[in-house]
Amino acid sequence: MAKQSVLLLGATGETGGSILEGLLENGSFDITCLVQPSSSTKSSVQALRNRGLKIVIGDLNGSVEALAEVVRGFNTIISAISPPYQMAQIALVDAVAMTTTTSRFVPCAFTTVCPPGGVMHQRDEKEIVYQRIWGHHLPYTIIDVGYWHQFSFPRIPSGRFDYAMLLPRNDIYGDGNVPNLMSDLRDIGKFVARIVRDERTINKKVVAYSDVLSQNDVVAIVEEKSGEKVEVTHVTEDEAIQRRDKARVALEAYPSDNMNTMARWTNEYNVSKYVRKDNTLENAKYLGYIDARELYPDFQPIRFETFVQELLQGEAKKLYAGKF
Amino acid sequence: MAKQSVLLLGATGETGGSILEGLLENGSFDITCLVQPSSSTKSSVQALRNRGLKIVIGDLNGSVEALAEVVRGFNTIISAISPPYQMAQIALVDAVAMTTTTSRFVPCAFTTVCPPGGVMHQRDEKEIVYQRIWGHHLPYTIIDVGYWHQFSFPRIPSGRFDYAMLLPRNDIYGDGNVPNLMSDLRDIGKFVARIVRDERTINKKVVAYSDVLSQNDVVAIVEEKSGEKVEVTHVTEDEAIQRRDKARVALEAYPSDNMNTMARWTNEYNVSKYVRKDNTLENAKYLGYIDARELYPDFQPIRFETFVQELLQGEAKKLYAGKF
Repeated sequence: MAKQSVLLLGATGETGGSILEGLLENGSFDITCLVQPSSSTKSSVQALRNRGLKIVIGDLNGSVEALAEVVRGFNTIISAISPPYQMAQIALVDAVAMTTTTSRFVPCAFTTVCPPGGVMHQRDEKEIVYQRIWGHHLPYTIIDVGYWHQFSFPRIPSGRFDYAMLLPRNDIYGDGNVPNLMSDLRDIGKFVARIVRDERTINKKVVAYSDVLSQNDVVAIVEEKSGEKVEVTHVTEDEAIQRRDKARVALEAYPSDNMNTMARWTNEYNVSKYVRKDNTLENAKYLGYIDARELYPDFQPIRFETFVQELLQGEAKKLYAGKF
Repeated sequence: MAKQSVLLLGATGETGGSILEGLLENGSFDITCLVQPSSSTKSSVQALRNRGLKIVIGDLNGSVEALAEVVRGFNTIISAISPPYQMAQIALVDAVAMTTTTSRFVPCAFTTVCPPGGVMHQRDEKEIVYQRIWGHHLPYTIIDVGYWHQFSFPRIPSGRFDYAMLLPRNDIYGDGNVPNLMSDLRDIGKFVARIVRDERTINKKVVAYSDVLSQNDVVAIVEEKSGEKVEVTHVTEDEAIQRRDKARVALEAYPSDNMNTMARWTNEYNVSKYVRKDNTLENAKYLGYIDARELYPDFQPIRFETFVQELLQGEAKKLYAGKF
């Protein structure tokens, strides 16, 4: 059987990198990476070439007609564009719709479960892209994954986790008991490889995850595995909302300050996950998602517990290596 | 068994009136009509009182807390608010969410199938209301119904239809072959009465309809039943788009001119229905709707053919009686 042709945008990023590995490991795909002209000489793109991967250059900021010629003929198109560039997908959606050769477009979702409408700016940008897809009647699959294990562990006093730590998660919101969907970053691609070959997921939202854990569950697992006491800080729900509102005001005042952008992301995530209880399996089902774990009962995702074991063994990988 | 308590907003309107009759005929509901303070002395509201219907006064423009006290305790809340006041539902949604006593909120959908995102202004306003519902995790059902028979018939030369005519539909768009979902206005309430008692429709979008007909189908039915030749005018797809764009510009220039508002509605509907092919069963399924005809195979809606027969017999009712 001919391999399924896939065009992947964002292969050098964390999510896109996981997707690339997942598709390669699965073996059913003929993969091409879509790269922006401005990135074509980057070492990360050269590394893809060195692995023998096919690269095509396409400009999301150029003419839609030219982009349509680049994306024409691919059966499946997956976008894992980096967070600040979500809106550049509008041109990609328009280009894909012009070709009529794509049987599934996977926009850049890959985030927590959250409704559109003022909860998270990032989520609302994604919604505009989804609406563009629906406007074209384009076949699609939206895949969300909860929050990554790699972002969800607290610091422990010995400092044994510090080598892999980007954002320490020692703040406990409210009573710490709100359940949250979680995934290991490495599993995202394995889920995607199954989902994009599955007719049941066409024109659907799918939620993929390994665990549903509260912050208290996370602390308990880390304490049990490490034998250390996690030092937590308590944040009330009202404080979380105040921090978010402050971050929004700061960004509005100084929109070009990237620290303000990061602060809004982080605080909007915290309110959505821990105060609003958006990132739960119950809410995913309410919002119309189908459950990847029910679709693929044989798939064994990497549990948070396993990830913590790797962390302790010094085997975890720091994300965004070289950037922070 | 205790009757299901329903609060209905918009009972004096065309859609709300159909819903009221459908709920009454079904017999399973304990109905209360929600009326705005400014409407409480209207003769149409007095007519509801005269029929023995319960009326509560609630102000959508007042405090949300006060409105919550009005809506508290109703099992099912159905909004058929009139088109220009869609955004007033935001306060209603917030009030319903405060009570936690409502097991199903039915926002004012009751329109054609159309994606959000710039196709129809009315649809985009409804989407903001839906997002508000999702933001509160409120149980809901969205019910769309296609275009009404009562708005879909062309003028015939003898003038025999003129008594019931609001908008003559003698423009044929493109080749006239685009299928469209259609419902008889009188069936909306019958569908709603079934849908709001059905657990399968909770947190779902449902599409209800009697026919899927193209404009050429409509003309053929009318010609066959009347024995007259329908005089049609052909409008190209490009012309339809130009008319819509012109109507949008005119409204932007003179937003308080209600004729401009009506012109935008009409022209946006035409492009959505006849050029974009949004109001089809295929598109409804693509957008995630479940099909009321599949849910209720025993229900026999009033077919367009039957409606035309009534029209010819002088038995059809002019809509918005006394207003035009």
